[in-house]
Amino acid sequence: MKDVAARAGVGLKTVSRVVNEEAGVTPDTVARVQAAIDALGFRRNDSARLLRTRRTASVGLVLEDLADPFYASLSRAVEDVARAHGALLFTGSSAEDPRREKELVLAFCARRVDGLVVVPASDDHRYLSSEIEAGVATVFVDRPAGALDADVVLTDNAGGTREGVAHLIAHGHRRIGFIGDQQGIHTAAERLRGYHEAMEDAGLPVRPEWWTMGPTAPERVRAALDVMLSGPERVTALFAGNNRVTVTAVRVLSGLSRPVALVGFDDFELADLLNPPVTVVAQDAPGIGRSAAQLLFRRLDGIVSDEPTRIELPARLIPRGSGEIPPS
Amino acid sequence: MKDVAARAGVGLKTVSRVVNEEAGVTPDTVARVQAAIDALGFRRNDSARLLRTRRTASVGLVLEDLADPFYASLSRAVEDVARAHGALLFTGSSAEDPRREKELVLAFCARRVDGLVVVPASDDHRYLSSEIEAGVATVFVDRPAGALDADVVLTDNAGGTREGVAHLIAHGHRRIGFIGDQQGIHTAAERLRGYHEAMEDAGLPVRPEWWTMGPTAPERVRAALDVMLSGPERVTALFAGNNRVTVTAVRVLSGLSRPVALVGFDDFELADLLNPPVTVVAQDAPGIGRSAAQLLFRRLDGIVSDEPTRIELPARLIPRGSGEIPPS
Repeated sequence: MKDVAARAGVGLKTVSRVVNEEAGVTPDTVARVQAAIDALGFRRNDSARLLRTRRTASVGLVLEDLADPFYASLSRAVEDVARAHGALLFTGSSAEDPRREKELVLAFCARRVDGLVVVPASDDHRYLSSEIEAGVATVFVDRPAGALDADVVLTDNAGGTREGVAHLIAHGHRRIGFIGDQQGIHTAAERLRGYHEAMEDAGLPVRPEWWTMGPTAPERVRAALDVMLSGPERVTALFAGNNRVTVTAVRVLSGLSRPVALVGFDDFELADLLNPPVTVVAQDAPGIGRSAAQLLFRRLDGIVSDEPTRIELPARLIPRGSGEIPPS
Repeated sequence: MKDVAARAGVGLKTVSRVVNEEAGVTPDTVARVQAAIDALGFRRNDSARLLRTRRTASVGLVLEDLADPFYASLSRAVEDVARAHGALLFTGSSAEDPRREKELVLAFCARRVDGLVVVPASDDHRYLSSEIEAGVATVFVDRPAGALDADVVLTDNAGGTREGVAHLIAHGHRRIGFIGDQQGIHTAAERLRGYHEAMEDAGLPVRPEWWTMGPTAPERVRAALDVMLSGPERVTALFAGNNRVTVTAVRVLSGLSRPVALVGFDDFELADLLNPPVTVVAQDAPGIGRSAAQLLFRRLDGIVSDEPTRIELPARLIPRGSGEIPPS
């Protein structure tokens, strides 16, 4: 506020009057202060004022895709916690586009949200530093912030994948494929790391055509499977890097004469009723959302240390049948 | 604004100054005008001002449950249209609680949203009349407003159900069960009507123990199925009133030795890979969301008549196997 006052050539009291929309300031001065505020990227922490004026608090949630069951479940959990704290929820899908993420985050900030829960699409969140310093509590979820030390709630992606791949190895598989999401996505890279570690731990080689990273569109997954499932070195088992990949893999594998074992990251509805029932490494989507939102409100209430907090939740292997098929 | 001015004992110009947060009004007068505004339930239509100040526009979306795949898909479609119009999205789940719906709607209005898309939980929306008159464009979706003539985008629920039940009748069934959502929900009541009409059209009697309405929790659906599937007059086919009911019905029926035909309202992921694949009456969740949001923005742009618009989208029968099982 001192910087704003200096830049606008007015006293602190005037800045405060403008910020609090009080009367007694000329339109010209208001414009000058506003320009200084804009130039300096200054934003007031609204929480205290919200309590006074009883305007409802709000939280902005940026995720990858509202229609993806994993994020739908995560966002419902964030909403429940926000509601328990009397706050409204802004939501937006980034569709893995860093510019869209930034656009949404800044639009939420311009709307003076009290806090943000962000599933990062970008790998550089320094654009948020000034907002966080200005008092917008921010918790990253599912993936850590890029180039910024901030609160984050994650699943143990590498550990969960290691366990899933080791499970396939324990059932006799030696040639195991991995289809992951785009390399730049933290969770995708971590799961790929888990795959390589599990293979290495078992002393198994990994051929380059056995693993692939990219968009999870059905056509891409189908093409990747075609490659892995042909030739003399074809895989006898597949680890699917997320629920979108698993759903397409289930479709493709159900049409094959030779059974291929399958373990998928993320649980999904009715997985246990498919033939064979699908073995998964389940993460706790509501638990991640809940933890992130709770951490956010602890920050807003000032009852957590200033140090960024990192919370990692375990993933859980659920054997159901598809991951216990022996090599053919 | 005249009413506010009269009640506050000030001129129209002063009211306008306070509403537009201009300088030159004493704090005392601001408080008096504010009190008059609160007392009269007056709210300004912000759209024009938003364009002037370039603050991002926003839309409030109230639905039943963010985590339900039908609503997840609908909300993603609303978001896409809002984004195309440069607007942000507030979302909230009513969980079928009329008080919670009203609370969310009024909180969004207090946050000065430009428009609302509402899946009604309440059967009385007169509380919204003053907001709509004050310029908050409102489109109801999935279910019509209660006691209020307003824009609405719906699926032909009765027609879709009639077609689904007629399909079971065409495959030889005479004793057909129906499990629906709570009676007070418009879509649930409409689907029940479609069931009764299809049975009547075919000259078939309906026994009271063959149909039931209530919460879609798995325990309730299981208990209802237990009743329908026992005794000499047990049903040989079931029409499931929505995707939550279908998912539980699939689980229960898969554990029975005697096959029971099934048609479910709402399509769902992997329905075609279950054994048997599930025949559904599909509604177009993205289409409903898109139509509602487009209608909302046409209203905001003032390029639609003042008369409330009603859009009804057809449902589509997708035969896959479970609905073609003959009576056992």
